[in-house]
Amino acid sequence: MTLKYGEEAIAEAQTARLEIWPNPSPERDYEIDISFPEFTCLCPRSGYPDFATIAIRYVPDKSIVELKALKLFLNSFRGRGISHEESTNLIFAELEAALKPRFLEVTGDFNPRGNVKTIVKVSSRSRID
Amino acid sequence: MTLKYGEEAIAEAQTARLEIWPNPSPERDYEIDISFPEFTCLCPRSGYPDFATIAIRYVPDKSIVELKALKLFLNSFRGRGISHEESTNLIFAELEAALKPRFLEVTGDFNPRGNVKTIVKVSSRSRID
Amino acid sequence: MTLKYGEEAIAEAQTARLEIWPNPSPERDYEIDISFPEFTCLCPRSGYPDFATIAIRYVPDKSIVELKALKLFLNSFRGRGISHEESTNLIFAELEAALKPRFLEVTGDFNPRGNVKTIVKVSSRSRID
Amino acid sequence: MTLKYGEEAIAEAQTARLEIWPNPSPERDYEIDISFPEFTCLCPRSGYPDFATIAIRYVPDKSIVELKALKLFLNSFRGRGISHEESTNLIFAELEAALKPRFLEVTGDFNPRGNVKTIVKVSSRSRID
Amino acid sequence: MTLKYGEEAIAEAQTARLEIWPNPSPERDYEIDISFPEFTCLCPRSGYPDFATIAIRYVPDKSIVELKALKLFLNSFRGRGISHEESTNLIFAELEAALKPRFLEVTGDFNPRGNVKTIVKVSSRSRID
Amino acid sequence: MTLKYGEEAIAEAQTARLEIWPNPSPERDYEIDISFPEFTCLCPRSGYPDFATIAIRYVPDKSIVELKALKLFLNSFRGRGISHEESTNLIFAELEAALKPRFLEVTGDFNPRGNVKTIVKVSSRSRID
Amino acid sequence: MTLKYGEEAIAEAQTARLEIWPNPSPERDYEIDISFPEFTCLCPRSGYPDFATIAIRYVPDKSIVELKALKLFLNSFRGRGISHEESTNLIFAELEAALKPRFLEVTGDFNPRGNVKTIVKVSSRSRID
Amino acid sequence: MTLKYGEEAIAEAQTARLEIWPNPSPERDYEIDISFPEFTCLCPRSGYPDFATIAIRYVPDKSIVELKALKLFLNSFRGRGISHEESTNLIFAELEAALKPRFLEVTGDFNPRGNVKTIVKVSSRSRID
Amino acid sequence: MTLKYGEEAIAEAQTARLEIWPNPSPERDYEIDISFPEFTCLCPRSGYPDFATIAIRYVPDKSIVELKALKLFLNSFRGRGISHEESTNLIFAELEAALKPRFLEVTGDFNPRGNVKTIVKVSSRSRID
Amino acid sequence: MTLKYGEEAIAEAQTARLEIWPNPSPERDYEIDISFPEFTCLCPRSGYPDFATIAIRYVPDKSIVELKALKLFLNSFRGRGISHEESTNLIFAELEAALKPRFLEVTGDFNPRGNVKTIVKVSSRSRID
Repeated sequence: MTLKYGEEAIAEAQTARLEIWPNPSPERDYEIDISFPEFTCLCPRSGYPDFATIAIRYVPDKSIVELKALKLFLNSFRGRGISHEESTNLIFAELEAALKPRFLEVTGDFNPRGNVKTIVKVSSRSRID
Repeated sequence: MTLKYGEEAIAEAQTARLEIWPNPSPERDYEIDISFPEFTCLCPRSGYPDFATIAIRYVPDKSIVELKALKLFLNSFRGRGISHEESTNLIFAELEAALKPRFLEVTGDFNPRGNVKTIVKVSSRSRID
Repeated sequence: MTLKYGEEAIAEAQTARLEIWPNPSPERDYEIDISFPEFTCLCPRSGYPDFATIAIRYVPDKSIVELKALKLFLNSFRGRGISHEESTNLIFAELEAALKPRFLEVTGDFNPRGNVKTIVKVSSRSRID
Repeated sequence: MTLKYGEEAIAEAQTARLEIWPNPSPERDYEIDISFPEFTCLCPRSGYPDFATIAIRYVPDKSIVELKALKLFLNSFRGRGISHEESTNLIFAELEAALKPRFLEVTGDFNPRGNVKTIVKVSSRSRID
Repeated sequence: MTLKYGEEAIAEAQTARLEIWPNPSPERDYEIDISFPEFTCLCPRSGYPDFATIAIRYVPDKSIVELKALKLFLNSFRGRGISHEESTNLIFAELEAALKPRFLEVTGDFNPRGNVKTIVKVSSRSRID
Repeated sequence: MTLKYGEEAIAEAQTARLEIWPNPSPERDYEIDISFPEFTCLCPRSGYPDFATIAIRYVPDKSIVELKALKLFLNSFRGRGISHEESTNLIFAELEAALKPRFLEVTGDFNPRGNVKTIVKVSSRSRID
Repeated sequence: MTLKYGEEAIAEAQTARLEIWPNPSPERDYEIDISFPEFTCLCPRSGYPDFATIAIRYVPDKSIVELKALKLFLNSFRGRGISHEESTNLIFAELEAALKPRFLEVTGDFNPRGNVKTIVKVSSRSRID
Repeated sequence: MTLKYGEEAIAEAQTARLEIWPNPSPERDYEIDISFPEFTCLCPRSGYPDFATIAIRYVPDKSIVELKALKLFLNSFRGRGISHEESTNLIFAELEAALKPRFLEVTGDFNPRGNVKTIVKVSSRSRID
Repeated sequence: MTLKYGEEAIAEAQTARLEIWPNPSPERDYEIDISFPEFTCLCPRSGYPDFATIAIRYVPDKSIVELKALKLFLNSFRGRGISHEESTNLIFAELEAALKPRFLEVTGDFNPRGNVKTIVKVSSRSRID
Repeated sequence: MTLKYGEEAIAEAQTARLEIWPNPSPERDYEIDISFPEFTCLCPRSGYPDFATIAIRYVPDKSIVELKALKLFLNSFRGRGISHEESTNLIFAELEAALKPRFLEVTGDFNPRGNVKTIVKVSSRSRID
């Protein structure tokens, strides 16, 4: 099991293809919340496993994400060395590119490391204003 | 128990009639929250059972929904093959047509499938602005 | 124990007198939250008992409600046949008439019937805008 | 243990002196939340004990409250006959006079009496608009 | 183990260096939430230990904080005498100086002392308006 | 709604008939646990309502209890004045007479009265040895 | 969807074949706990759906149960009319016949019906002695 | 409010009379569990208030305890200086003398003092064998 | 990442060496409970990831287990195809061989698969007698 | 802050004197449960802080432990390097020597380290038979 870091990890994830389906009710704004409690990747420094729950909230436009392919896409991080911030932003970017949704938020809620717990939230709506 | 898919399922649900009663206090905006933890239908691909809690929040205008007929309407999905997004949108559309409420929100909170949990929320108030 | 329905129930509740006291701090907007987990009445169709927690939130103006008389008022529903929507709206109307508060919200959180749970929320502030 | 009612109780509480300290960071708006789960006083009608958790939230200006003296101030209600509404408003008024804070909220969350639970919330920001 | 008070404590903490890394996605506003349940320092009056959970929420600009150095920075309070208000404001000021984030909030949730529980919340966004 | 006390209450409960059905698996010891969270009767002194959850655990011999009739039997206490100890023992005695089970336990878990919570547990197996 | 009652239901369940695998560690007593929160069948009187969580605890001897076939066996009750006591005893009997385990316990924890909640526990170890 | 210590406190408690009633079902061993979450006394050293939940479990013989008098007995500790161990043992001794029950257990679950939480359990059945 | 099945997986785990340390208090029976919520391996049939919390309870004799090496041993299952029953029994066997403890229990609490949740408990004390 | 290891740590702890008081009710077996959620020491290998809740259950004979001195004794571990097993056994031994209780159990429930959580339970009653 060889670790892959930084640019290389990002490259590989982009080959794991998300699948999309047509939105059955595009005439209406509605929200889909998906949570996946079994995300695991590797720490890019130590090589030790990291664990997280990935939560995805979106308002679809023309497309919805197919869940089986989504699971395989998330499983594809199992052998990669990638930081908390990078993996959450990468999942956000892949979903945004595939779905072009009206709204999207991705949260990576990671298990504590060194007694420090980290949650990363990326959203298409700014959290500052 | 024959499965019914797509258009056919939508057709059948429209024959299960919701019943309405006059709103006893139409002069006032008030909210009615209903939750039904025993919704089950069939996965349109695998034919396996799906389970959800259906939550309905609405502000009635001239009519309120009768609960016994609502339960029978929700029970009528037991033998249908229909996706999470379609069933939640279909329940929303049927209630909106029958009640013409001042506000309506329908949430389908589905049990995990393939370790992925999905919640679908359809509302008459947009979630984007 | 004779059941009383519709108009008759509303009439009787209006003879159960709420008591009011002067607000000790009328110069300030403050909130009083009251909850009563032992509300019971009878289903107007089946005659079977219904159970609810009644929650009252208000910002008093000149008057506050006396709690002992409030409890007796709520206990007076024990022998009446009245629907969820009617009882919650009736409690709201009685409190509004007696207290003329700056803000009032009454919630009836009813135990499930036929596996369907219902909550009715009546507020002096609209929930739609 | 002689009970003291109404005006007399208010007078005595005003002799229990809160102590203040200089705010170490007055250049910034920040919030201090204090909760005291061991408040007890006496019912002004029955003389029976009442129990509450008192929660205080404030944004300090020039002063912060000293916690030991605050505890003694709250303990000084142990022998007084005072209603839920009066004690919460009195604690609010004493803190506001002593601290002149940028924001202040006091909540008295009282144990049920006669199966009725009461919470009183007094805030320097109106709850109506 | 000699205690260090007030100015001296603040001075020492400023020698415990936070480390920063470049933000991998500076083109986007996203939130990082960190919580550290094992903060301990000493009461500046009694010398007894105090315990808290420190929670940090921020929207990074050019930099993110390195977690190992952050842990060592928080561990460096173990032998210092410093009040709840001072330690929370000090952690906020150090992070703000090191990260210059788009948004920052630091919460110190301290264990009860003398049966009084205190939470201090410092934010770059005012809590009053 | 006339209250009925002591002997009279016991008499009336004995006219509310429990129904029994044949045990489908008498060859095996197995346990049936039933809980009914909507029990209400009246305090024999004050006439005020009392509320409880009644829990029944038994190992059937030749008979099992029919649930609809059991509910009506428990509902029949709504208008009676009867103490916590008497009602729990009465339910136990009625079930034991009707079912002659291999084991029986009845628990009445009553809502607090005067800030005192009471649970009464009656079992065919002694709790002392 | 035709309902099947009593004898007929029992017959059909016996055609839904459980599958067994060899126990990988028969030299040791160890426990396997399985829980299935998505059991549904039909009430033999009303025809309405019933819902339960089925829990299975056993100490295997020569065989362990295959989980996919177990799920299909439990799903096969979806269209049957069968009582709480019968379905739990039937699942117990089928597992005992297929596995001949050293210990077996089956619990059916059913959703409330008519506000009465029922749990049925069948065990190869008597609950009376 | 003068504090009373040691022997004097024990003397006073013995004048607060518990009341007993005849057990309605002395032919059967059954259990009565009472819990009182509003116990307060004073620390015999500091004079500061202490708070506890007092739990009483007993199997009555000829007598049961009257709940109103029990509450007044427990309220009578409000002005006394008495340790955790002494108050729990004293309540046990008074109940045992008044009720001569078949089994008795008294638990005093005290709020933390100096960050140390203490629970005292006194039982007529030894906890060692 | 090549999967390894059955015999091969067992072989590899035996090369991941547990480390032992001398028990600092062998004169006394005491219990050590360890839980590791981040166990993951692969399903031997589908190759999909499985997740579990592994709990270890033991009474040491001459040796205690070193925690860092234990973590690496458990991490070594990440790339193996192995069933729930096999992995739990394998961890038990390895610990028993390395520690020769006075008592040992290993529990594998696995995440649901196909909506079925499984827990495997292996103990040196039989669960049948 | 110099670390002290092994023998030296044990020596120092023996100079931190526990204080005992006479048991007010030695004629009766009763239980005292103490829990202290703010224990901290240092890892003997890394020097990093460890955190635990220490729980003490005992049946006193002639003596009970004084809580203020107990707290200071537990606080005295703050600067010591000592393992989980050693500290729990050391606290057990010190209490047993000072109190000679009829029964004693000490539990050290430590925060996770390296994602592994450990609980150590030392009891005067063997956990094996």
